[in-house]
Amino acid sequence: MTNTSQQIGLSFWAKTDLATRAEARRLLSAVVEEGADDFVGLFYNAFLADDEASTFLSHSVVHERLGKSLRGWLIELLCADPDAGFEAFDERQKQIGEIHARIKIPIHLVMAGSSLLKSEVSARLLEKDADRNTVIVALMLMSELVDYAIRQMSQAYVVGTTRRAQVDEAYRLVSLGQDVSLERESQRAALMEWGQSVLFGLFGNAGSAPPEPISQSAFGLWLRHRAGMMFQGASSLEGIEDAVQQVDRVLLPKIDEARAEGGDRLQDVLRRLQASIEEIKYLLNDLFQSVAGMENARDPMTKALNRRFLPSILSREVALANSSGSSLTLLMIDVDHFKQINDKWGHLAGDTVLRQIAEVIMDNVRPCDFVFRYGGEEFLVALVETPEGAGVDIAERVRRQFMEHKLQLPDGDAITATVSIGVAGHRGHPDYAYLIDLADKALYRAKTLGRNRVEIDSAVAAE
Amino acid sequence: MTNTSQQIGLSFWAKTDLATRAEARRLLSAVVEEGADDFVGLFYNAFLADDEASTFLSHSVVHERLGKSLRGWLIELLCADPDAGFEAFDERQKQIGEIHARIKIPIHLVMAGSSLLKSEVSARLLEKDADRNTVIVALMLMSELVDYAIRQMSQAYVVGTTRRAQVDEAYRLVSLGQDVSLERESQRAALMEWGQSVLFGLFGNAGSAPPEPISQSAFGLWLRHRAGMMFQGASSLEGIEDAVQQVDRVLLPKIDEARAEGGDRLQDVLRRLQASIEEIKYLLNDLFQSVAGMENARDPMTKALNRRFLPSILSREVALANSSGSSLTLLMIDVDHFKQINDKWGHLAGDTVLRQIAEVIMDNVRPCDFVFRYGGEEFLVALVETPEGAGVDIAERVRRQFMEHKLQLPDGDAITATVSIGVAGHRGHPDYAYLIDLADKALYRAKTLGRNRVEIDSAVAAE
Repeated sequence: MTNTSQQIGLSFWAKTDLATRAEARRLLSAVVEEGADDFVGLFYNAFLADDEASTFLSHSVVHERLGKSLRGWLIELLCADPDAGFEAFDERQKQIGEIHARIKIPIHLVMAGSSLLKSEVSARLLEKDADRNTVIVALMLMSELVDYAIRQMSQAYVVGTTRRAQVDEAYRLVSLGQDVSLERESQRAALMEWGQSVLFGLFGNAGSAPPEPISQSAFGLWLRHRAGMMFQGASSLEGIEDAVQQVDRVLLPKIDEARAEGGDRLQDVLRRLQASIEEIKYLLNDLFQSVAGMENARDPMTKALNRRFLPSILSREVALANSSGSSLTLLMIDVDHFKQINDKWGHLAGDTVLRQIAEVIMDNVRPCDFVFRYGGEEFLVALVETPEGAGVDIAERVRRQFMEHKLQLPDGDAITATVSIGVAGHRGHPDYAYLIDLADKALYRAKTLGRNRVEIDSAVAAE
Repeated sequence: MTNTSQQIGLSFWAKTDLATRAEARRLLSAVVEEGADDFVGLFYNAFLADDEASTFLSHSVVHERLGKSLRGWLIELLCADPDAGFEAFDERQKQIGEIHARIKIPIHLVMAGSSLLKSEVSARLLEKDADRNTVIVALMLMSELVDYAIRQMSQAYVVGTTRRAQVDEAYRLVSLGQDVSLERESQRAALMEWGQSVLFGLFGNAGSAPPEPISQSAFGLWLRHRAGMMFQGASSLEGIEDAVQQVDRVLLPKIDEARAEGGDRLQDVLRRLQASIEEIKYLLNDLFQSVAGMENARDPMTKALNRRFLPSILSREVALANSSGSSLTLLMIDVDHFKQINDKWGHLAGDTVLRQIAEVIMDNVRPCDFVFRYGGEEFLVALVETPEGAGVDIAERVRRQFMEHKLQLPDGDAITATVSIGVAGHRGHPDYAYLIDLADKALYRAKTLGRNRVEIDSAVAAE
C-alpha cells in the first residue's frame, strides 16, 4: 500500500508512521471541508488575473460549473485516502488536463492557482490547535497531493496541446494547399464587389440605406473566418485589418454626410475610399505572395533545405543516433570573402557562387543526408550514419572541388572562390544546438587559421 | 518590495514579518548549501526513472553539465533574496524551459523531480534545531520559490513544444507535398537495386564479400531518415521495418551458408528473399497510398470538410465569437433511415444521397461557413456570425429542399429521403465540445419526435 503513495511521489508521506498519518488526514479533511469555498475562490482569482482566461470566465455556465468542479476536485484530492490506490484518480486528472488543452487554459495558470491554494491551506492548518507534528505531516501531504495532481494534468495538457498544434498547422497548410491563386482572385473579386455596391448605393435615393460596412461583406467575413487561420501572424494581414477598420469607422460615416452635401466634399471622400480599396488590394496580393516562400521546404535559389526545418530534422537525427548508437556528423560550410565577391562582381555573381557551392555539396553527399541553407553564404550539412573521420573526407573533397573549379559569372568572367568548413561529430549530447555550436566553432577556427581549410571541432582536438 | 514577492506568488511569504523572514532565509540557505549535492542527486533520480530521459542522461557531458547547472539553479533559487526583484531570474527559468522543449525533457518529469526535492528539503528543515515558526516559514518559502520557478519554466516549455510541433508537422506535410509519386518510384528503384546487387554478388567468387544488409542500402537509409518523419505512425511503415529486419537478421546469413552448399538449399533461400522483397514493395505502395487520403482537407465524396480539422476550426470560431461578441450557430444534420436506404437500394444509392445532401447544404450556406462530414451520414455545419433564429431558418430550408427533391439513383430509380436537424446557438461557453453536444441532443430530439424536423437545443427550449 505504501508503495502506491510512494510511486506517485508522496515521498514525505511514505516516511510517516501510520498513527500520525491517520491524525494528519483527519486534520487536513477538517480544514479542507471548512474552507472549501474560500479555496475555490482563490483558484478562481488566479484565473481572473489572466486576460485571456478571464474573458470566458464571465460566462455564467462556466462560473457555476467551474466552481462546482473545483470544489469536487479539491475534496476528492485532499480528503481521500492516499494509501488506497490512485488509478481512477489518475484518469480524472488526465481528463482535466485534456479539457484544459481543448479550451486553452494554460498550465501555468493552473499552477499559479494551485500555489495560492497550497499557501492558504497551509496557513489554515498552522492556525489549528493541533499537535505540531500532525500539522506538518498534514501540510506536506496536502502539498504532495496537489503537486501530484498538477503533474498528471500537465502531462495530459502538453500531449493535448501538442496534438492540437499539429492539427492546426496541418489545417493551415492544407487550406493553403488548395488553389491559392483561385482563392486570391475570389477575394479580390469580393473586395471589388463591395466597392461597387457602395458606389451604386450612392446613386440611389437620398433616403436609401447607408452603405454596408466592408467588415460585414463577404470579403470581411473571409478576412475574419478564413484568412486569420491561413495567414496567421502575417504583417500584411494586420495591415488589411487596420485598413478595413479605417474604412468602416472613418470613411463610411463621412460618405453618408458628404452625400447630403454633394459636390467637392463627396468627391474628396470617394477619392479616399478608392485609395483605401487600392491599399487593401495591394496588401492582399502581398499576403498571398508572402506564403508562397514560407511554405517551401527548400530555398528557391540554392535548393538547399529551409533553415526553418532544422530543429525538426536535427532533433530527430540526434535522438535516432542516441537510441541506435549510430554516428552523425555536421559540416558547417562558409564561402570565403563572400562580401568581396559581392562587392566586386555584383550580387548576381554572388548568387552564382552560392548556387554552385550548393551543387558541389549535394553532388558529394547521399540523398539521405540533409543540406540546409544556414545563413547568407553558410550551409549546414547533416551526414547521417557517418563518423567524423568520413565527414572530414567529404568536407575535404568539397573544399578541393570548389577551389579547382572556375566559376562562370553571368557576364562571362570566371572567378575562383574558396570555402572554409567546420566539422563536428555527434558524441551523445542530446541537444542538437550543442552540436551546431561545435561545428560553428570549428568553422571559426578554419577562418582564423587562414580560410580555405577544414577544421574539426575542438572538443575532439583537445582529446 | 513586498509587492514583487507577492506578484510572483509568494503569498505566504508576503504575509510574514520581516524579522522572521531574515531568520527563515538564513536557515534555508544553510540547509540548501549543506545538502545541495544530495538534492541534485534526487532530481537526477527522478529523470532516471523515465525511460526516454534516461537514454541521454548516460552521456557524460550531460551528467556533468546537468549536475552543475542543477546545483547552480538550486542555490540561486533558494539562497537569493526573494524581496530583491525577479527579472533576471525569470529570464533564466524561461531559458531552461526552452532548452527542455528543445531536447524534449517532459515538464511532468521536472515537476516530479521538484516534488521530491521539496519533500527532502522540508525533511531537512524539520530536523533543524531552530525556532518552529522559522522552520515553517523557511519551508513555505522554499516551496513557493520552487513552484514559482517551475511555473515559469512550464510556460516557456509549452510555448517551445507547441512551436516545435507546428514546425514538425509543417516539415512533414511539406515533404509529402513534394512529388510523392516520384519519391515512391525512387524508393521502389532503390529497393530493386539492392535486390539485384545481392543476386549479382551470388555469382561472384565464393570468397567475395557477404551481401550488404538492406538496412545499410540507400533504401534502408531512406527508411530510417526520411520515411520515419513523413509517414509517422503509419502501420505499413512498421511492417516494412519488420520485414527489413527479418531479411537482414534471418535471410542474409542463410544465403551465405546456402551459397557454400548450393543446389536446392540456395534455391529455397532465394525464393524466400524474393517473397520478402515483394512484401516490402507491396507495403511501400500501401504506405504512399495511405497518406493520399489523410492529407485532404475535404472528404473526397461529399466535398465536406474533414472531421479531423473540427477542433482547429471550432475552437477558433468559439474564441472569436467570445472575444468579438458575435454569434455562431451549429447545425447537426442526419439523413433519416439511412441504413434502410443503403440496405434496400445498395451503397451506391447511399452515396448518391450523401452527395446530394452535401450539395443542398452547401447551396444554402455562405462560403465563410464550415460544412463538415461529421459521421457516416451526419454533417455538422458551423454558421459564423449567425444567430440561432437565422440558423433555424437555414435548417428549415435545407430540410424542405431535401424533402421536395427526388433523388435520382444510379440505376434510374428515384427516391425521396428526409433529414433531421439539431440547432444550437453559441451562448458564451468556451468549450466547443459543449456546443456540439447541445446540437447533438437537439438532433436526438428531432429523431425521437418523429424525424424530418428541426429542433433547437433544450437549453434554449428550457428558458
